[in-house]
Amino acid sequence: MGAAILFDDIQSVFLTRQYDICAAFEAMDTASFSSDNWHRPNGGGGLSRLLTGTVFEKAGVNTSVVFGDIQPDEAPMFTTLLSNVSNESLCPTASFKATGISLVVHPVNPFIPTVHANYRYFELTNGDTHHWWFGGGADLTPYYMFDEDAIHFHDTHKQVCNTLSSTAYDTFKNHCDRYFYLPHRKETRGIGGIFFDYLNDDATALFDFISLASNIFLDAYLPIVHRRINTAYTEHHRKWQAIRRGRYAEFNLVHDRGTLFGLKTNGRVESVLMSMPPTASWVYNHVPEPGSQEALLVSILQSPKQWA
Amino acid sequence: MGAAILFDDIQSVFLTRQYDICAAFEAMDTASFSSDNWHRPNGGGGLSRLLTGTVFEKAGVNTSVVFGDIQPDEAPMFTTLLSNVSNESLCPTASFKATGISLVVHPVNPFIPTVHANYRYFELTNGDTHHWWFGGGADLTPYYMFDEDAIHFHDTHKQVCNTLSSTAYDTFKNHCDRYFYLPHRKETRGIGGIFFDYLNDDATALFDFISLASNIFLDAYLPIVHRRINTAYTEHHRKWQAIRRGRYAEFNLVHDRGTLFGLKTNGRVESVLMSMPPTASWVYNHVPEPGSQEALLVSILQSPKQWA
Repeated sequence: MGAAILFDDIQSVFLTRQYDICAAFEAMDTASFSSDNWHRPNGGGGLSRLLTGTVFEKAGVNTSVVFGDIQPDEAPMFTTLLSNVSNESLCPTASFKATGISLVVHPVNPFIPTVHANYRYFELTNGDTHHWWFGGGADLTPYYMFDEDAIHFHDTHKQVCNTLSSTAYDTFKNHCDRYFYLPHRKETRGIGGIFFDYLNDDATALFDFISLASNIFLDAYLPIVHRRINTAYTEHHRKWQAIRRGRYAEFNLVHDRGTLFGLKTNGRVESVLMSMPPTASWVYNHVPEPGSQEALLVSILQSPKQWA
Repeated sequence: MGAAILFDDIQSVFLTRQYDICAAFEAMDTASFSSDNWHRPNGGGGLSRLLTGTVFEKAGVNTSVVFGDIQPDEAPMFTTLLSNVSNESLCPTASFKATGISLVVHPVNPFIPTVHANYRYFELTNGDTHHWWFGGGADLTPYYMFDEDAIHFHDTHKQVCNTLSSTAYDTFKNHCDRYFYLPHRKETRGIGGIFFDYLNDDATALFDFISLASNIFLDAYLPIVHRRINTAYTEHHRKWQAIRRGRYAEFNLVHDRGTLFGLKTNGRVESVLMSMPPTASWVYNHVPEPGSQEALLVSILQSPKQWA
């Protein structure tokens, strides 16, 4: 598969996924997605879609295609990327091209978990050498634990990973737990899922995998929404959700490579920060009551479990 | 003035300030400060005091004394600090000692600005060489602009700076505007104040200055609280306050050296993050209505003014 064809094919998959995912969320809410087409001054642009509804307090689904020469102030960032796929040093004439889909859904009901997914394809031309790789993943951030939801989300992703290899799920699941870890809180952001980066061994197999993984996102998440959508909640549950959303904000702003990459390379700020929770709260020294549902969640975030 | 005596004297000033500041806030609220004494495993500890009230939604006032050998994982951080006062490289046996007061007040009423102040003294023993320096400052983050409040806050601090030198205020004011800048938002966190670091030319003069600056904090802030405390506000104003508090969270988690230093050197997380707003909100692509009070604030944050 030629790289040029591959790029357009992948972009096309991501646009289809964005359309389908937005349509599925709209079918469950009273509100509709807005659409912002934006352009990147140095090359490319994207389509940011946002829904602010009664089921989904904030759902953002972005696609983008960005490309161009690597600017001097971006060189350190790209040097780091290149070091993951090659021993070369970055040429002054290096250029890149990337396409991706990225989504975060923050539901109103605290019994419905927040979900995040991101799939991306990257090309880097460094002098005479051409590099490419895939990255991405999907992970779930519940406010209250329902084992069947965690099992369903992980199991759905495990089945897709099995189409790539028999070890892929374990590798990606562990990578996800390591990546979404807040050292200062000694806990993970959520109950994980899959995460991978710099995959570049078999373009066709990876294309199929990314296509499939982004396609099963709705199968992995929507049944959970349906199960929890009518669960009654109180101010107490919303307060806990806001505190946990604070941890989500901490992770994104202190650790998330994608967010920091966007902020530090003059990305489109509003699209980069679409992942931020609609509300968040910081309560000094908040410790859930021993034995409570809130305490149970924290104990699971402190030592990730095997779900599938 | 001997360094050992100086350290205890400074610590004593900070403890006095903490006591006085907490007493003054308590006198204006129906709630009282809680007190948490905490110990740092590698040496020292602190006193974190927090008030959650009806006037002050979250007011945190911390003092700490921390000391010890520099651990291998902390060496990069201290190498950076040392580079600001010396050309030496960090010895494996280096040790440090620091004391400071740090406070952030997030009022309920959106017409009362958030305030932050921090004063600190640092000693670093590097082989046979002993280094010390002072740092700190105070800055105001309004949600709505009242020129007289900005002028009062800056003017009070300018008078204190003038006791140090005739150029101190301008230097510290400009440093503050540069420090509290969010490049990705192209705006400052608030309307500034003063900021300085690595001051080490005259221990006695600096001690007097820090003592005075931390003492006039209440004179700089409380008259503003009194002026705005009875101004009626609506949900509209609270929503704007929450959005701006989101920017406050962004600054602290992405840029603030003190916060990142605390998070990355195993500081006491709850004390480090006491500065975080009680609530925050992220609204996609929020742009204030042209000509509104909200738009006026943003325009001032985009190009800092001279207030005193």
